[in-house]
Amino acid sequence: MLTARGTERKTYRAEAFSDAVLAVAITLPVVELRAPKPVPGQSLAQQYAALGPDYATYGLTFLVIGIYWGYSHFSGKLWEKTDHVFNLLTLLFLACVSVTPFPTRPLVEHFNDPANVHTAALVYAAGLTAPSVAWTLRWLYGVRRGLLGEHIAPDYVRAVTVKYVASMALCLTGLAVTAFVSWRVGLAIVGLVTLQFLLPPMAPRYKPGEEPESEVQEADERM
Amino acid sequence: MLTARGTERKTYRAEAFSDAVLAVAITLPVVELRAPKPVPGQSLAQQYAALGPDYATYGLTFLVIGIYWGYSHFSGKLWEKTDHVFNLLTLLFLACVSVTPFPTRPLVEHFNDPANVHTAALVYAAGLTAPSVAWTLRWLYGVRRGLLGEHIAPDYVRAVTVKYVASMALCLTGLAVTAFVSWRVGLAIVGLVTLQFLLPPMAPRYKPGEEPESEVQEADERM
Amino acid sequence: MLTARGTERKTYRAEAFSDAVLAVAITLPVVELRAPKPVPGQSLAQQYAALGPDYATYGLTFLVIGIYWGYSHFSGKLWEKTDHVFNLLTLLFLACVSVTPFPTRPLVEHFNDPANVHTAALVYAAGLTAPSVAWTLRWLYGVRRGLLGEHIAPDYVRAVTVKYVASMALCLTGLAVTAFVSWRVGLAIVGLVTLQFLLPPMAPRYKPGEEPESEVQEADERM
Amino acid sequence: MLTARGTERKTYRAEAFSDAVLAVAITLPVVELRAPKPVPGQSLAQQYAALGPDYATYGLTFLVIGIYWGYSHFSGKLWEKTDHVFNLLTLLFLACVSVTPFPTRPLVEHFNDPANVHTAALVYAAGLTAPSVAWTLRWLYGVRRGLLGEHIAPDYVRAVTVKYVASMALCLTGLAVTAFVSWRVGLAIVGLVTLQFLLPPMAPRYKPGEEPESEVQEADERM
Repeated sequence: MLTARGTERKTYRAEAFSDAVLAVAITLPVVELRAPKPVPGQSLAQQYAALGPDYATYGLTFLVIGIYWGYSHFSGKLWEKTDHVFNLLTLLFLACVSVTPFPTRPLVEHFNDPANVHTAALVYAAGLTAPSVAWTLRWLYGVRRGLLGEHIAPDYVRAVTVKYVASMALCLTGLAVTAFVSWRVGLAIVGLVTLQFLLPPMAPRYKPGEEPESEVQEADERM
Repeated sequence: MLTARGTERKTYRAEAFSDAVLAVAITLPVVELRAPKPVPGQSLAQQYAALGPDYATYGLTFLVIGIYWGYSHFSGKLWEKTDHVFNLLTLLFLACVSVTPFPTRPLVEHFNDPANVHTAALVYAAGLTAPSVAWTLRWLYGVRRGLLGEHIAPDYVRAVTVKYVASMALCLTGLAVTAFVSWRVGLAIVGLVTLQFLLPPMAPRYKPGEEPESEVQEADERM
Repeated sequence: MLTARGTERKTYRAEAFSDAVLAVAITLPVVELRAPKPVPGQSLAQQYAALGPDYATYGLTFLVIGIYWGYSHFSGKLWEKTDHVFNLLTLLFLACVSVTPFPTRPLVEHFNDPANVHTAALVYAAGLTAPSVAWTLRWLYGVRRGLLGEHIAPDYVRAVTVKYVASMALCLTGLAVTAFVSWRVGLAIVGLVTLQFLLPPMAPRYKPGEEPESEVQEADERM
Repeated sequence: MLTARGTERKTYRAEAFSDAVLAVAITLPVVELRAPKPVPGQSLAQQYAALGPDYATYGLTFLVIGIYWGYSHFSGKLWEKTDHVFNLLTLLFLACVSVTPFPTRPLVEHFNDPANVHTAALVYAAGLTAPSVAWTLRWLYGVRRGLLGEHIAPDYVRAVTVKYVASMALCLTGLAVTAFVSWRVGLAIVGLVTLQFLLPPMAPRYKPGEEPESEVQEADERM
């Protein structure tokens, strides 16, 4: 009863749930984008300009959640199945991503406020580090439990593992730097690590003779 | 016209709807997680600290809805079809789960308020009991109506039925204890019953000779 | 260019979009269900009791949107394809359903307010009539355009058409009665027509020799 | 690492994510549609009437997002696969569409306010132009990268490309006219370009001998 054996399913349903959570999380911040309400003695143009931090917050939020969706979309190609514990780790990852919009606005608002920018940067760096940790834990569990397609080349799995663990380590380092050395440097580290996920992921490599029949064949279609 | 015959469909569409509702329900509480707004004379760190109950509320809410999603994801492997009445019971279950975030915050806020903690605990215990009741009713209807995969071993169905009915009975007992005996003990019962659903579900057993072709074959793929 | 020819697709994607809109619409009203905030001099129990109209509103809203989802889930079994105009009618239907929560609360609040209950009832009756009209228009367009599975018996299509047109006519009659005769009678008519959709839909009938291979075979799986 | 090769997947998952974002975006504005709260000395009918701009805003928002969903639903029939960069362009498109509700309300509110209507019209025109630009960039990238079904006739692809580029150019022209010449004329241009997407899209044409087996066969089902 303490093993996840027997709870395996193909990935499409867990992937759809994950996509739905990310879709809601990426769209919800629009609610914060209130249209300017008529203010006496202020032109609409001034009111729109005053919403600058809101634009910046929304854009940043969309970027971060979008990056994570892009990566989870790609990695859905590699997973062959899911199980109960993998689902729980997916939930942990989604909880971390969903909270991302939360510390974005204080960072934007306090960026030029010396008294508080350190706090704002620290919480924001933690907010970017958390999904990276959850993502890497999920990857490691899935690899160990044999949830990846069996036709994927072991050296590719190792390369991706190195990349994810290194990204997580860099984020944690950036978080420590933010806390104890310099919030500018620390935030730059965490931010750059996150932004590099905008670049296309490494193209999968397959075991000789087990290449998929086409470039779009999914791991869970081979069974 | 008073029977659901002829309304059967495969489960994937109802499952997708259910997942979408849970995805919205699990993500919506983020809206309550307002970023701290600048307050004169208060540092950002103090403002973040003041949001402690919000963190706790969000975490607890995510945990409970996540648990229910995990279980409904697993059980989707067992159902072969759905019908109109089963859909209505699914809706009842979803309504109960969606309301879960509602009584969480008062419980967190009144935890050290002797005058009101009993009320807060009672409503919270009811909020955890309701999905358990709806879930069990849905299971019982589906079993009786023959909506499970026919290849699943009867003794496995019986074991799961016992587990769900017992969980429901324990929740109802916990609710009564919360109301009439001790909110601490009652809440502990209801909470532990809910938390045990974090553990992996019992691995399905199949009729001899009717085992699925692979560990990820869905009940509705056999037809 | 003014015909929808060439825009046909299988229904599963439009159905998934429709389900997602309904999932959001049915879950969003939870946002209105604010947890009681500590009020000086009031016990938590009193605060919960004061939220009575909120419970009633949420329950009523969930019921109405749930009914429409149940029906659209069933009817997804019958449609074989969709086209651009059918999609626009689906959007009209979804817009009407999404607005349903809007007039629910005023009706609950003004139920015992003789000065305004007539207005509240009229808007609510209109809110229940609109989806019924959109639903029927969509059905009629789909039938005429040949979007239903070709194996469905013509007399079944006629029977369903009669049922939907009659329901729409009854809703419009109820709306007129609410406006000009008695809001109690009018609302009762519109409410009962809506509630009867809780009953299982008529089981589909098929052309002789074209029965589906199993009770869960979808219309768009025959092609 | 700077190419998207190896990240291709079938379109159904990216399409589902896109649909989910649009479903949330089209339903979220309902939250702004607050039911009238009892105001002393005002009848409920007056309160409903005062919500006129809210109705108009909601209707307009639903129309615009609905139009874009209709088009993205149709075009899903043509795409055979997606890749990482195509996903990022999809995200850009979704971000633009999600923001659409934002400038709608100020336009409705300031329509008869000569001092500010120009600003309101300009932001609204920009709000309609942005999705059109993102949509066209996504189309151009997908065509160049070979993501369309290979059986689609080149002259059809050219005709659609001309249509999308022309629509984008007209929107940008309308935006310039709004800014520098006349907001009425500019807004009319942008609005009409957007509204023409309500008309059914051009029926696809196929290479001779490569016609799909049925009118609902998807591009990604041929592989």
